[in-house]
Parts: sequence; C-alpha cells; structure tokens
Amino acid sequence: MADPRFGLQRRVVLPGPLALDGGGSLAPIEIAYETYGALAPDGRNAVLICHALTMDQHVASPSPRTGKPGWWARVVGPGKPIDTDRFCVICANVLGSCMGSSGPASIDPATGKPYAMSFPVITVRDMVRAQAMLIDHLGVASLAAVVGGSMGGMQALSWAATFPDRVRAALVIASTARHTAQNIAFHEVGRQAVMADPRWCGGTYPPEAPPSSGLAVARMAAHITYLSEAGLTEKFGRRLQARDAKSFGFDADFQVESYLRHQGLSFVDRFDANSYLYITRAMDYFDLAEEHGGRLADAFRDSAARFCIVSFDTDWLYPTAESRSIVHALNAAGAPASFVELSSPYGHDAFLLDSPDLDRVIAGFLGSER
Amino acid sequence: MADPRFGLQRRVVLPGPLALDGGGSLAPIEIAYETYGALAPDGRNAVLICHALTMDQHVASPSPRTGKPGWWARVVGPGKPIDTDRFCVICANVLGSCMGSSGPASIDPATGKPYAMSFPVITVRDMVRAQAMLIDHLGVASLAAVVGGSMGGMQALSWAATFPDRVRAALVIASTARHTAQNIAFHEVGRQAVMADPRWCGGTYPPEAPPSSGLAVARMAAHITYLSEAGLTEKFGRRLQARDAKSFGFDADFQVESYLRHQGLSFVDRFDANSYLYITRAMDYFDLAEEHGGRLADAFRDSAARFCIVSFDTDWLYPTAESRSIVHALNAAGAPASFVELSSPYGHDAFLLDSPDLDRVIAGFLGSER
Repeated sequence: MADPRFGLQRRVVLPGPLALDGGGSLAPIEIAYETYGALAPDGRNAVLICHALTMDQHVASPSPRTGKPGWWARVVGPGKPIDTDRFCVICANVLGSCMGSSGPASIDPATGKPYAMSFPVITVRDMVRAQAMLIDHLGVASLAAVVGGSMGGMQALSWAATFPDRVRAALVIASTARHTAQNIAFHEVGRQAVMADPRWCGGTYPPEAPPSSGLAVARMAAHITYLSEAGLTEKFGRRLQARDAKSFGFDADFQVESYLRHQGLSFVDRFDANSYLYITRAMDYFDLAEEHGGRLADAFRDSAARFCIVSFDTDWLYPTAESRSIVHALNAAGAPASFVELSSPYGHDAFLLDSPDLDRVIAGFLGSER
Repeated sequence: MADPRFGLQRRVVLPGPLALDGGGSLAPIEIAYETYGALAPDGRNAVLICHALTMDQHVASPSPRTGKPGWWARVVGPGKPIDTDRFCVICANVLGSCMGSSGPASIDPATGKPYAMSFPVITVRDMVRAQAMLIDHLGVASLAAVVGGSMGGMQALSWAATFPDRVRAALVIASTARHTAQNIAFHEVGRQAVMADPRWCGGTYPPEAPPSSGLAVARMAAHITYLSEAGLTEKFGRRLQARDAKSFGFDADFQVESYLRHQGLSFVDRFDANSYLYITRAMDYFDLAEEHGGRLADAFRDSAARFCIVSFDTDWLYPTAESRSIVHALNAAGAPASFVELSSPYGHDAFLLDSPDLDRVIAGFLGSER
C-alpha cells in the first residue's frame, strides 16, 4: 500500500510548536507539499526544492487552482535535470504563504478566525525550520540537495547555515545572501500599495473582497524588477496595444502597460494580500551574515555541503555581485563552491524560463552527487 | 518703471489657442514663470531653463508654497554657472502642471469647474509650444540656450527640433530622446496607484480630499528610480530606523522604508494627482525620433544650435546609452555636439545635487556662447 505521506497534493498538520525568530511560536503548523519519485530505503536521495515569493508546492504538477503546469515542470521529472527517477523531490509551500501552508489566511485555533495580521512575522529561517519538521515527518535525515531560485535560493542558503549536517549540496540560483536597500525599497512600495487600499481593512478583509487594487499595483511594481530593461525593450519596446496611434488618453496605449496591468490583475486571483506582506517582510529581513555575527563566511563554517551559485548577467534585482559575495564567503569558509554567471536577456525571471544552460548546470551539479 | 513682464512670481494669460499634438487646442493658456537678470536690449541673452516632472518655475528663488530654496539655486544666480549677471534666465511651470500654469486643476472656462480629466492630454512638444508663446510675450526672438535635466532635457531637445531657428544652444542633462518600455512601465505603476485610490473619483476629487494614498505610492515607486542602488546602500544600507532591533511587525523598521514613506507623504502636499497623470503621460509619449519619421537625426536636421549632452554613470532611469544615442544622432545630423558622462554615486538625482563637475560643464558650455 502506498505511503500516504508521499505523492501530489499532500497536506500535514504538525503539532509543533515551531519557535520563531521573532520570539513567539506557532502551533500547529500546517504544511502543503508534494513529492515526486520514490524515497530510497536509506532516505538519502531526497532533494528539497524551495519556491520563490509567489510560487507554490506544485513544482512539476499542474496547480489544482489554476490548471497551469508546474512552475518548474521543465526542470523536474523523469530524466530531467532534477531527475525524479533518481531523486525523491520534495516541494512545500512556505510558511506564511496561502497555498495550503500556515499563513495569515489560516484559522487561528485560539479564535476560530483567520489570523490576518495577528499571524506572527516570520523569517526565511522560520520557513526553513518548518521544512525541517516536514522532512522529519517524511523520515529524511539529510537532503541530497536543497535547490532554489530567488527566495528559494535564500532558503537553500539558510538550510546550509541552519542545518549544516542535514544538507549535502545547495544550489542557489538568482539569489542573494541579504536584501539590499533597493530590494527593501521596492517591497516597501508594494506593502504600502496594499495597505493604502481601503479594502485591506487592517488585514481583516473578507476573502471575497480582498484589497485587489493595492495588490495589483504591488505586483506591477515588483514585476518590473523581475525583467531586464533589454528584455522589456525586446518584448514590447514602445509598440502600441491593438491600435495604430496613441489615444491621447489614459488607456493602456502601450503593450507594456497592457502587459503590466494583466500581471497585476491575474495575480490578485491567485495570491493573498496579507501573505504578500508577510513573505516580502521575511525577504527584507533576510541577512544571513547578520544572523552569524556580521560575517557571511561564518554562516557556512559548520557546513559539509557542496555549493553551486548561479546568477544571470541581466538580473538587476539580485545582480551577479551578490552571488559573487556569497562565493567569496564560501571560499573563506573553505566550502566547495562553484559559481556560474549565465547569460540571458530576461533578467531575474530567467531562472523560471527555458534555459538549456541552466539545465546543464543543474544536471551537472546534481549528477555529481554520490 | 520696471517692466511687469519680468521678475519673480509672474503669471500671464495668453489668449491662444494653442494647437495640441492630440488634435485639440487649448485657450486661454495660463503660464506661471519667473525671470532672473535683465534682458539685453537686443533680447539675445535669454536662457530658458526647463524643469523636471515635479519641479516648478522657482528655479532660483524660494518657493512661496514651501519656503524652500529654488531647486537649482546652486546653479542659477549672479556669478553662478548660469550667470544672471550675464543672462536673462526664464523658467516657466510646464503646461499640465499645478504650480500656476494651465493644467487639470485649472478652471475650464467652458464649465466654470476644474478641467480634471477633461484637460487635453498633452505632449512634451505642447509644453514647448506654450513656452514659445511665453517668450514671444517677453519679446525674445531666439534663446541663447535652453537648459534642462530629466524631463527638462526632453524639452530642450524638443525646442531644438521644433523651433530650430530660435535656439542657439541646448544643454541636455540626464535625459533621453524617448521613453523606454521600462520607463513607461514605472510610470504606469504610478498612474495605476493613483487611479486605484477610491478618492481619485475619476479625477473629480475635491482639492481638500485628493487621492493622497495612491499618489504617495506612485511617488515612492518613482523615487526609487531616481536613486542608484549604490547610493541607497551608502545612504541607508540595512540600517534600522530609531530602533536597536527589528520590530517583527510592519512599521518602518529600516531607514530606507522610513525615507520612502516620507518622500511619498511630503509629495502629496505639494503636487496634484491629476497633474502627475498628465505629465507622466507626456513623458511616456515622448519619442523625438517618432515625431520625425523614425530617424532621430532628422529631428536635428534644421537646427543651428550647439548641443551639450550630459549623463551620469549611475543613472539607470536614463542611462548613458540613451545620451550616447542622442549624440550619435546629432553627429549624423552634422550638429556641433559635446558629450560628457559624469561620475556620481547618486543616480538620476545627481543633476539636482551638488556637483562641481556639472557646474563646470554648464559654465563652460554657456561661457562659450557669443
């Protein structure tokens, strides 16, 4: 009989409590996750994939909400760069999100109502601690690899630092070891846009009337940071949207305006506004060096993991310089680390797009795992 | 007796009509402006300074609204780089703005009510045409120079292209000959933030209850584009605001958050939300090549002006590559052009900040005027 802990669309309620960086604790902890491929009898072939800000646990299977293919179906599957014939892949919705794991939209058992803004402010490390509870539940002592792009890469770094003896390899793509002032600034604009929407109501909006306008604006602002200027120019330039001439009005004259509006509007259908506040906050709080006395190398002092750090040359959200400083710290800590800057016109989003170069790096790095 | 057309805090109502790029016309046209220094008897020492998006006509005198010094008082005055002992400097509030020139907050004579969104959508060239009517009124046949940074630089370029025989020199600082997809995208976020604010009311908000929340968010997003990542890191880094530790809440923990919130809040006290929509639209519509059959060099074909193009190395809003393409077009048109990329840590905003290098370039370029 199949082990019910494994498979698609799994959900577990762990008793906790989970002690949080903010001082409080959370209990119980609900985690929505998926697994792909069979766990080896010795439990040593598990690969954890950590998702980015607005992604979910459906890394390689269609989302039951949207029907869309998994967000990394290109990379994860039998014979693919993360080969599920070989690895047991685990992907869990992060703490604070809204795709089934505990977050501000979850019911607070103490009140019987949604937590909303009474949900504790969490950190990337708290997300990782919750994932550690999940792999305990799955009987996985140590991970063959932790893999993630963007915020997923922050989690991969945090895993290696927080659980140095439970991670054998960490693959960090288009990410950073800390949020810069500019990163924080963009997120703050988004949070202010949400909180300025009168329908936000201090976070207590009913699910059927969320602060859609504010959240759409937040998404639009963030979306610009995911794309390169060259990519936007190539994709849209100054081309007009379904018209021959400017309207001399305030409709979406330009294709790029229409595209951004669509990004904003479609986002609000799939994401909870309060979760957006909480997860952006966790990212802004992320500073791995600060968690280790101010010296990034010390974060990796006890790690036995191999590392691979990947950046994209047109990513201005987490530019190559950020990856390079991670590599310097890994070198200073004596950790085995490889570093690749890939070329792509697509900016930060490149890690989610078709990239044979990235596929080769992933397959190569994981293939060398014994 | 002093000529009442000259001096500080001047205002003129010109009968018009002003034919607009959008097809309609505007009449009458009110223009708020200031002049500094005496116009020579032959009228040939006039220098027009064009302001940026949210600036005003108070280039070198305190704003009567805010009491703050003129926005370029460092540059304009007796013995300064734009020497008012020598030049008669003119600075006018642009059409569409809210500092005294005709804009959406002006009263529509046809209805006796504010234009609001019935104000015609205008272009940078329309702004320039209104300025030409002003210099007619002042008895200035041709300008010794047109000078501007950012949107002011667009106006300077448009002046040279639209009135080739009325401009003897054009100084274009931190500017561009067209808005890129990324430029448009950031402005569109701002417009959507304003229009998402329920208090916007389709533009018909009463002056005492403007869409402040939306406008503040728009300003915050725009403000990030005015600063460089390195400048933000130098100024704020990840330093906390008046606290020793993170709050694990949604207050402005980081200095950069507090700074941005302040920028947003103080902006709404001094700027009209509808004007913000109209002027950003004019900037997004700006594409000088498109106005001249798609070839930028053709914009300068008839110009007799000398040009000086200045960029800043950390300006990612209008990066040096944009200035370089203007220079290429000027060269192709056979126009005398010099080009300087200045080094500054402060990004786009550098043109407004203390910069001895910029001062020298301005003084040198204007000093060579005969």
